[in-house]
Amino acid sequence: MFNPAISQLTAPPVAIVQNWIDAYDGTHGPLIDLSQAVPGYPPHPDLVTALASAASNAASLSYGDIEGEAELRQAYAEEMMRIYGHDVAMDHVLITSGCNQAFIISALSVAGAGDTVLMTEPGYFNHDSTLAMLGIKTASVPVLAEDGFIPSLDAIEKAITSSTKASQIKALALVSPNNPTGAIYPPEHLSDILTLCHDRGVWLILDETYRDFIAADQPRHQLLAHPGRDRLILLYSFSKAYCIPGHRLGAVCTSPEAIKEMAKIMDNIQICAPRVGQQAIAPMIKSLVAWRQDNNEKMAARADAFRQAFDQIDGFEIAAMGAYFGYIRHPYQDTSLSVAEDMAKLVGVLIIPGDFFGKGQEQYLRFAFANAEIDAIKQLPERLSALKI
Amino acid sequence: MFNPAISQLTAPPVAIVQNWIDAYDGTHGPLIDLSQAVPGYPPHPDLVTALASAASNAASLSYGDIEGEAELRQAYAEEMMRIYGHDVAMDHVLITSGCNQAFIISALSVAGAGDTVLMTEPGYFNHDSTLAMLGIKTASVPVLAEDGFIPSLDAIEKAITSSTKASQIKALALVSPNNPTGAIYPPEHLSDILTLCHDRGVWLILDETYRDFIAADQPRHQLLAHPGRDRLILLYSFSKAYCIPGHRLGAVCTSPEAIKEMAKIMDNIQICAPRVGQQAIAPMIKSLVAWRQDNNEKMAARADAFRQAFDQIDGFEIAAMGAYFGYIRHPYQDTSLSVAEDMAKLVGVLIIPGDFFGKGQEQYLRFAFANAEIDAIKQLPERLSALKI
Repeated sequence: MFNPAISQLTAPPVAIVQNWIDAYDGTHGPLIDLSQAVPGYPPHPDLVTALASAASNAASLSYGDIEGEAELRQAYAEEMMRIYGHDVAMDHVLITSGCNQAFIISALSVAGAGDTVLMTEPGYFNHDSTLAMLGIKTASVPVLAEDGFIPSLDAIEKAITSSTKASQIKALALVSPNNPTGAIYPPEHLSDILTLCHDRGVWLILDETYRDFIAADQPRHQLLAHPGRDRLILLYSFSKAYCIPGHRLGAVCTSPEAIKEMAKIMDNIQICAPRVGQQAIAPMIKSLVAWRQDNNEKMAARADAFRQAFDQIDGFEIAAMGAYFGYIRHPYQDTSLSVAEDMAKLVGVLIIPGDFFGKGQEQYLRFAFANAEIDAIKQLPERLSALKI
Repeated sequence: MFNPAISQLTAPPVAIVQNWIDAYDGTHGPLIDLSQAVPGYPPHPDLVTALASAASNAASLSYGDIEGEAELRQAYAEEMMRIYGHDVAMDHVLITSGCNQAFIISALSVAGAGDTVLMTEPGYFNHDSTLAMLGIKTASVPVLAEDGFIPSLDAIEKAITSSTKASQIKALALVSPNNPTGAIYPPEHLSDILTLCHDRGVWLILDETYRDFIAADQPRHQLLAHPGRDRLILLYSFSKAYCIPGHRLGAVCTSPEAIKEMAKIMDNIQICAPRVGQQAIAPMIKSLVAWRQDNNEKMAARADAFRQAFDQIDGFEIAAMGAYFGYIRHPYQDTSLSVAEDMAKLVGVLIIPGDFFGKGQEQYLRFAFANAEIDAIKQLPERLSALKI
């Protein structure tokens, strides 16, 4: 009765874990929600004011441009230049309703049913399920704990060449800073990956949803100055850094030729992104640079607290961590799905089990430490010690 | 380099016609925009107030439920019961970002690449391009001017049985009130169509974007009391009746089983619809019933003015009209694309050419008369008489 490509998908992972919340009786204190990545602080008051003002402005009520509000596309192009130091113009930018939408539009612009897109394993579950629902095949690039969960050039090359039909491989989808592991891919390694992709006629789709949480003193990638830039698609989410996921706002940065193809897809998916968020955010990108930097430092302090907490917890180990996420090795025989459910219901710590991020991840748990105040993070040793499985 | 299913699509039709605007020099007075369907009156002030209030409310900032805000799903279910008189519950409802998104989610839930969906010709261009971009094949149900552009049961049955593989036909996509013709499909005819679809194991996807513009004294369809209801998907847009297309809000009404499948697709496309519009609209559905009815009557007056205008215009004929749109036969040898471009650039009347709605439509033009004040509609005879092609 239904499309088997959809029936075969599991229910949305975040909804599954949120269903565990009600079973926790509060014994150990309020639930600590480290599941869906949501910054644990409010948006800047100027942004809230701008949202209310845009919502009552007639200019937000009518249909907008398919590619997004000109003012926001321009401001986002300037932000890309500020961060990366290379030319980006408004016609390199498409505004979407969040970063999942940026991904589906990007993937569909370069790959159709029967084509193949490479993904890391572990990888972001919505990328996997999006490709599956479109009939696009995936092939895995295994990433190893001993490599810090960073895909090697060899592994990528092997995934491209070992396919029965290399010409069907249209793109490599990466996430850096990574979801679920937190790993930040080194800039030079990303350059080498783009060189490889470009040589093989494969697009590099790089999801940078968590890039605002990279420490300010870390070097940035130089992909926008790379000769293979015409095969590059960069994705972004305004949800995390600006704390407004309910407004659903994301962006694609790629070549103007690719933006033209993507606009056709955007038109079919929803004509244009909702306008209130777009209009409110546009001037804030520039004016909230310092505020975002402050938050970036707050996140670094949370990361420190998280590391210290796991120093005190027997059996659990930090397998990887970086911006936003810690990827934790648990000590039990059970699958991560089962451990995560127990953790939520018995000690009120909500996280996402590794099982949702691919095969071979039953030993891992994803903690979105950036969600929580330091005081909550400090409770983790006590909570996890109380867990009897 | 790109997915050929996307490269082969034309640029979005509305964007193409809007590009003609700047070439009109204003000689005949301000541009009369009867292209993209946008009601020519503002939203109710209570709704504007509610939008601003929701935008500054913290409850609109975080992620929402994938299926939509509970309050809105409940209010929409009650609205469906008010209109149609049959049971609809919250779990029959999914909230989307506009009706194009409601369509892509519905189509993908029942059909994948290689499957076939039946469409009328002429038909709504975004349905056609959405299916094409997903690799879903379309087969045409021809509709004839002499039948008032309403598809006959015979034509639908022939389209199902003449396919090489009938089992690949997963759905019939209809729009009533129709876009582009304005035709309102008779209730009993819709029942017969659902019977046929159900018997053949084919879903009926019925887009009711323009249903608020059906005159109050007209009977409504009884599809929600039909024994084949488990194969029925009803689509709706809040953009038109509430005059807030920039907020991107639509809805699907179908079985709870289908809603579960669709939620997986929604999660991949954008997690949830933007929340500000959802929260603001929820209480307004009930409170603005009388206001919407007033607007419905205004639209009827515009329809009268439109009919009278075309009585005075030589050569142009109303081939069909009903809620919102008039489908006009033009007197020229040129294609409708060429006539529409001339009409926009030379006399400042912006409409959508029939060519965008399918093959064999070169003689037709779609006028969204509901967009314009009666005074503007009254200018059509003078404008069209001045058109020298």
